[in-house]
Amino acid sequence: MEVGVLGGGQLGRMLALAGYPLGVRCIVYDPAPDACAGQVAPHLCAPFDDADALVQFAKGKQVITYEFENVPVATARLLEAHAPVRPTPRALELFQDRLLEKQFLYAVGIPTPAFAPVDPDHPDRALSEVGCPCVVKTRRGGYDGKGQIVAHTPDEYLRAVAQLGSQPLIVEAFAPFEREVSVIGVRGRNGETRVYPLVENHHRDGILRLSIAPAPDSDALLPLARGYIERLTAALDYVGVLALELFQVGNQLLANEVAPRVHNSGHWTIEGAHTSQFENHLRAILGLPLGGMAARGVCAMVNLIGAIPPLEPILRIEGAHLHLYGKSPRAGRKVGHITLCADGYASLQERLSVILPR
Amino acid sequence: MEVGVLGGGQLGRMLALAGYPLGVRCIVYDPAPDACAGQVAPHLCAPFDDADALVQFAKGKQVITYEFENVPVATARLLEAHAPVRPTPRALELFQDRLLEKQFLYAVGIPTPAFAPVDPDHPDRALSEVGCPCVVKTRRGGYDGKGQIVAHTPDEYLRAVAQLGSQPLIVEAFAPFEREVSVIGVRGRNGETRVYPLVENHHRDGILRLSIAPAPDSDALLPLARGYIERLTAALDYVGVLALELFQVGNQLLANEVAPRVHNSGHWTIEGAHTSQFENHLRAILGLPLGGMAARGVCAMVNLIGAIPPLEPILRIEGAHLHLYGKSPRAGRKVGHITLCADGYASLQERLSVILPR
Repeated sequence: MEVGVLGGGQLGRMLALAGYPLGVRCIVYDPAPDACAGQVAPHLCAPFDDADALVQFAKGKQVITYEFENVPVATARLLEAHAPVRPTPRALELFQDRLLEKQFLYAVGIPTPAFAPVDPDHPDRALSEVGCPCVVKTRRGGYDGKGQIVAHTPDEYLRAVAQLGSQPLIVEAFAPFEREVSVIGVRGRNGETRVYPLVENHHRDGILRLSIAPAPDSDALLPLARGYIERLTAALDYVGVLALELFQVGNQLLANEVAPRVHNSGHWTIEGAHTSQFENHLRAILGLPLGGMAARGVCAMVNLIGAIPPLEPILRIEGAHLHLYGKSPRAGRKVGHITLCADGYASLQERLSVILPR
Repeated sequence: MEVGVLGGGQLGRMLALAGYPLGVRCIVYDPAPDACAGQVAPHLCAPFDDADALVQFAKGKQVITYEFENVPVATARLLEAHAPVRPTPRALELFQDRLLEKQFLYAVGIPTPAFAPVDPDHPDRALSEVGCPCVVKTRRGGYDGKGQIVAHTPDEYLRAVAQLGSQPLIVEAFAPFEREVSVIGVRGRNGETRVYPLVENHHRDGILRLSIAPAPDSDALLPLARGYIERLTAALDYVGVLALELFQVGNQLLANEVAPRVHNSGHWTIEGAHTSQFENHLRAILGLPLGGMAARGVCAMVNLIGAIPPLEPILRIEGAHLHLYGKSPRAGRKVGHITLCADGYASLQERLSVILPR
């Protein structure tokens, strides 16, 4: 079975590695000659708008998927004529644009912070809908905190709009959240939908640093999150893995962002759940039965950002799992992650303190 | 880091897959053009006696290892001049030959069934040392039960010798064992030695069908098995993973066979232990710290032999992990395995009954 993967970063790499034991061969498509998935899987290196290369790529593929959401929608639409594309390109279209994303969430009844599109000629109108503090964001192209500015006052808001303003913008109310969590779900071709336990996420400078799974004290929130995933995926007849980033405010969960793909906050599932998000994504898009989502013990996932630390102290930790992506280190770049597994949160914290000393 | 692997079967394949997350790239060397590890790693296809190809292969390798024990010793010796070979080629030399193997075990004080080399001109002499029932085996080249005949009477013994007798033979007493178990250990470059829990193995027609890990009621036997592994590996200054197949007779463990490599009865460690035998082998030969050996719950490993069964019923089992090797099916050939994980033996048995109906 051959699966085409649009994008050849670490997510494509981990998809490919999850495929081999299932008898699934992933072939990645990425314009970057050094795309790291190309170290573990065949790599077709061509621009996303190269129609000939895309048609070539589609040949013999049982299904085509994508590993990042900024693949041009036109690319996915073109491929659809030659092979099934799952998840639906419609998901790319919606979730590449923060305004369409929020409008869609609103339409299917998933609460979000208040939001409004910014009219560049009358930026004050959006502010009056949302209020301060707020976050000004570019509608498209932002990731890892890029293209976002928090504003505490109307003046700061206007400065943020001026700074980002060459692109279409959205402004969102700043949610007074207690913590950030995410839920990762998978929907099969038959409509069956499953979710992993909630994950607690810690960001710094807009980049995910640490996930704890399952999120402590989150059992009561899971049905709510599951309902969001079910509504979201059913509305799109979505097939595959999908991540929903959420703000927890008391017993409420406000949706922040949707990623129509495997997600950094789900890396813990490789060792921490019976079936990883990567395997479950492949199972789903190939129409195979979905795998077990329950956690095996508890996990912490620590991103390696910008540099690879000395490995020996990490490998000495009982229950530590190293994942390097084969990427050359660069400031702010995710070059790998470590998953720590433990039987309980106390021993997890102990192991974590070796890697993240306070 | 680049590691050269002599042999490109499923063991080489799983070594390569274990290497990628560690930042280790395995390159396999195998004379067979369709060696299945070549689907997941670069493959140098050349005969084992091609000195030029071997020298080429050694270039840039941090270390060279082997994934099956019938690699010619001369191949490993030649490579030693160009890169470190771990485990030591001496282990190949000893464990390729059942007589040298048994003599070595005897020398380091590890009990075995009685054994004697068969003198083709006076086969009765060996029988008088060993008695009936016994097992006549070729000294070299046997695997998966090939080259072995059980004899219950002196007549059967003589017929077995006549049947196998063009090659050097050994005869061993047939141990009245209660069960077959194996212990898999790993020794680091600093001499640190660790073992996984004992595994209970079930063979049919000489081929491993099913392993249960940890072997039920085996905790009390583990120190004994650990001692064997320590003696065996220390005597050879062995570095890497090693498997010892044992007969359990009451509280005694008699050594049957040594495999100086990762082993089929250790496949459960991929999901069932914190660090798999494949990762631990790579860690050991690269001089990295060894990983955790404790079991995570209990596991059953079922070999897929000769054919790939319908996958859907397998994938539906909670805690089932499929491993296909990318080999074309052929009678008696291992084409994959399934590992079932569970919290306890009762639920394990329930899951197992789906795959192996009684």
